[in-house]
Amino acid sequence: MNGALSVIRTLLAHGVDTCFANPGTSEMHLVQAIDAVPETHAVLCLFEGVCTGAADGYARMKGVPATTLLHLGAGLGNGIANLHNCRRAATPLVNIVGDHAVHHVAYDAPLTSDIEAVAKPVSAWIRTSRTSEGAGLDTADAVRAAMSPSPDPRGGIATLILPADCAWGPGRTVGKPASFDAAVAKPRVSAQVIAAAASEIDAQTVLMVDGNGLTERGVTAAGRIAGKTGCRVFSPTFPARVEAGPDLPVVNRLPYFPEQIMELFGSVSKLVLLGGERPVSFFAYRNLPSDLVPDHCAVHRVAHRHEDVALALDDLAEALDASAPLLAPSPRPEAPKGPLNVRGIATTLAARAPDDCIVAVDSGGGGAAYPAMQRAVRHTWLNLTGGSIGQGGPAAVGAAIACPDRPVFALLGDGGAMYTNQFLWTAAREQLDLVAVVFSNRQYNILEVEYRRLGINDIGERAASLFDLSRPDIDWVALAQAQGVSAVKATTCEEFDAGVTRALAAGGPHLIEAVL
Amino acid sequence: MNGALSVIRTLLAHGVDTCFANPGTSEMHLVQAIDAVPETHAVLCLFEGVCTGAADGYARMKGVPATTLLHLGAGLGNGIANLHNCRRAATPLVNIVGDHAVHHVAYDAPLTSDIEAVAKPVSAWIRTSRTSEGAGLDTADAVRAAMSPSPDPRGGIATLILPADCAWGPGRTVGKPASFDAAVAKPRVSAQVIAAAASEIDAQTVLMVDGNGLTERGVTAAGRIAGKTGCRVFSPTFPARVEAGPDLPVVNRLPYFPEQIMELFGSVSKLVLLGGERPVSFFAYRNLPSDLVPDHCAVHRVAHRHEDVALALDDLAEALDASAPLLAPSPRPEAPKGPLNVRGIATTLAARAPDDCIVAVDSGGGGAAYPAMQRAVRHTWLNLTGGSIGQGGPAAVGAAIACPDRPVFALLGDGGAMYTNQFLWTAAREQLDLVAVVFSNRQYNILEVEYRRLGINDIGERAASLFDLSRPDIDWVALAQAQGVSAVKATTCEEFDAGVTRALAAGGPHLIEAVL
Repeated sequence: MNGALSVIRTLLAHGVDTCFANPGTSEMHLVQAIDAVPETHAVLCLFEGVCTGAADGYARMKGVPATTLLHLGAGLGNGIANLHNCRRAATPLVNIVGDHAVHHVAYDAPLTSDIEAVAKPVSAWIRTSRTSEGAGLDTADAVRAAMSPSPDPRGGIATLILPADCAWGPGRTVGKPASFDAAVAKPRVSAQVIAAAASEIDAQTVLMVDGNGLTERGVTAAGRIAGKTGCRVFSPTFPARVEAGPDLPVVNRLPYFPEQIMELFGSVSKLVLLGGERPVSFFAYRNLPSDLVPDHCAVHRVAHRHEDVALALDDLAEALDASAPLLAPSPRPEAPKGPLNVRGIATTLAARAPDDCIVAVDSGGGGAAYPAMQRAVRHTWLNLTGGSIGQGGPAAVGAAIACPDRPVFALLGDGGAMYTNQFLWTAAREQLDLVAVVFSNRQYNILEVEYRRLGINDIGERAASLFDLSRPDIDWVALAQAQGVSAVKATTCEEFDAGVTRALAAGGPHLIEAVL
Repeated sequence: MNGALSVIRTLLAHGVDTCFANPGTSEMHLVQAIDAVPETHAVLCLFEGVCTGAADGYARMKGVPATTLLHLGAGLGNGIANLHNCRRAATPLVNIVGDHAVHHVAYDAPLTSDIEAVAKPVSAWIRTSRTSEGAGLDTADAVRAAMSPSPDPRGGIATLILPADCAWGPGRTVGKPASFDAAVAKPRVSAQVIAAAASEIDAQTVLMVDGNGLTERGVTAAGRIAGKTGCRVFSPTFPARVEAGPDLPVVNRLPYFPEQIMELFGSVSKLVLLGGERPVSFFAYRNLPSDLVPDHCAVHRVAHRHEDVALALDDLAEALDASAPLLAPSPRPEAPKGPLNVRGIATTLAARAPDDCIVAVDSGGGGAAYPAMQRAVRHTWLNLTGGSIGQGGPAAVGAAIACPDRPVFALLGDGGAMYTNQFLWTAAREQLDLVAVVFSNRQYNILEVEYRRLGINDIGERAASLFDLSRPDIDWVALAQAQGVSAVKATTCEEFDAGVTRALAAGGPHLIEAVL
């Protein structure tokens, strides 16, 4: 057994069997090892940003990490933006990055770079293997580092750099120790903290819930607390994952713009953090604060995101002797008719999306579907967490591979979808049940909004050209078909409805260009 | 005047007028400044890897840097791979990266990251502006850092991070000082070093020429030296830029595989470095050395790449009293007929490419056109320098913007073209005279070759799936048309010839899918 095989076998021993890969010459022994271990599912992605975004989406759904397989510092670099998003989601992920043999690095061949330095801004754990015999142990350490709950703001990203000689030399597999599961369990919040919180929640309180507080168990308990105390329950604007549907209590999303959040908090006297954080402005603005909590609002921390927030909510509901949650389900709406707009897309999805679907969103309109779907259809919602566009399509690929029995929607602005359009090819190769909806407004709309917020009403031609995705218009139907994905264009609600209905009936990957 | 306007005006004062941009909210004041300064040419790219690759191609042609305009650490991250290639090309480039306002960084909003850490592996110079009043001076320093000849292996990349408050606060433009041109001139090699070199070059000598030694002036002088002494002249395998054509002496390229280089050096007793380096293996192999120069070969350095290599070659030719160079032009070949293959593409290009064209290549077949074109048509050749695929298309965009009167070919493997396929959109928007040739063999062919070099003849299905770009085949004609670029498919030499001829006659952007 060589070092590469010990890496793949050690991953398997720890339950990590899925690899989103774009290998190069320095990773050939790892490819050979993947070839030898049929339990490993290696998924080729045609750009590393798809690998890292897919691994994030996979682990958000599965709870155990996937690996990436990346080619030196440049390949890792291509994955950095979605690793940034992954870090903000605190998703466990193991990057396997090949490197030159240890003795070769000093010769500064063209692909040589400081891989640890590239990894540093996004990784909570980094190691470069030094021997092939140690590569298995390094791999076990990487998995434990990725999965261990931690307050490290760099989330659960472990980057293992494997020099070629550590792959081709003799290796040893490392099994999962008996203590592994205990080591990766989320810590429980103390009874004293719960009791103190129970005594202070009232109708002027907001609970800011994140982490596993947004699972079925967590939101159910939060709904019980709200029913008993009259408090309101919010998630952050872009939580990594939310379970929602008519059989679950409503979780509101914090709005995006600082003025909206400040207005919301005008009537809030207590903010209780259950996995969430104090709201801050997404960007800085000249005459607005960064911290959006007003002086009159007291802030109390009950649980950090890496702790067992769902259990804390359960314990809190018990301490309050709260009964079953209040539900406010809506009947499925009628599918709308007429010219297509964002509201029409959202309502159609609320009307047609199958129960237990998964929705991965990027920037650019998809978020509008959340309130409509939340009351109408049971689903799991995955957000763009770090603001770096191009995450939704890859995340949808990863989620579909993690949950092959659940249909997946990717709701994507055209700008963000273009960043990582190669996700379509992997959806086609893997024949994923994935419906990508591209909100095709042919502009970076948010930038025009933000530009106007500077007080500029007269947008010059040269500025407008930097927000404008027309000249030429992107033909999303052709772009999808070019990568093996069937596609249609919709300019009316009826066409959009027909496209969604046909895609779901047919199964497999589809794209709908929603022309706005 | 605010800080953003001072940045744009200071760039202009230093001759930097072209910006490859993908801005976000934190860059809105810079967009406003671009809008106000009509001499600045801002080019929108739909992915940051296109921005950085285009800025590299632009500056290789123009000699002065372009800027990028990137959105925080995540946007810079998306540009890292082509910055790696740019670093290996030692191209001057100024990254302008927006950041949150200084006071906002501490709140760790979703897009916050350690931008300096992201920049570090690729930047020779990094600064985060601290005041709007200082932003102009910071910009002037960035341009000088990018343009100053330097032995820094991180090339000429300067990264200026501009917090939003340094853009919106009051600013001051900085003019180009009288000393600027002298400060950025390449150093001259001393007469003693030239005299010593002149005394030792003989018929068993190889000159390894790089940097500005591969300009018309440099290769002409190298040809004189070869004619006088019988030495051979080589460039590295992947030099950043080479002038070539029938009116210039032949410059051989160092081959790629280590065995080929070792064979070449079997009969070489002296290696004289004129901007180039000792040849090393691109990758590490188990039973091959990293340094490929045999013990019997003496190595002498005459010039580093950052020095004036062309002048050193001139001086050397004078010291040797060498006469005009020997030329070995070929007549233009006949355009071949029959089924299309790499040789047919190369010969057709040698037959049809217009004089003074520019050729930007990526990985995957394009390199085969170099020897055929070198003897047949005057052109400038731009290589993928750092081995990170996805550079050729963006570099072609940048070259076409730098040289609007010269037709540009982008010779791209399908794997690499897919990485940064968004370059097509910018080619369409800017209506560039750009002919992209995609070598569509539907695989990462080099990986299969390298896998076999491990001694593996039986490639398993799971390994093969990681080299294979079929299932589904990418339809390059549709992918180009989707982005506004006219395109045809060629399966014979006649179809390829017709495609090239029509594209050149029509002008504007075109793609030819060369089906292999």
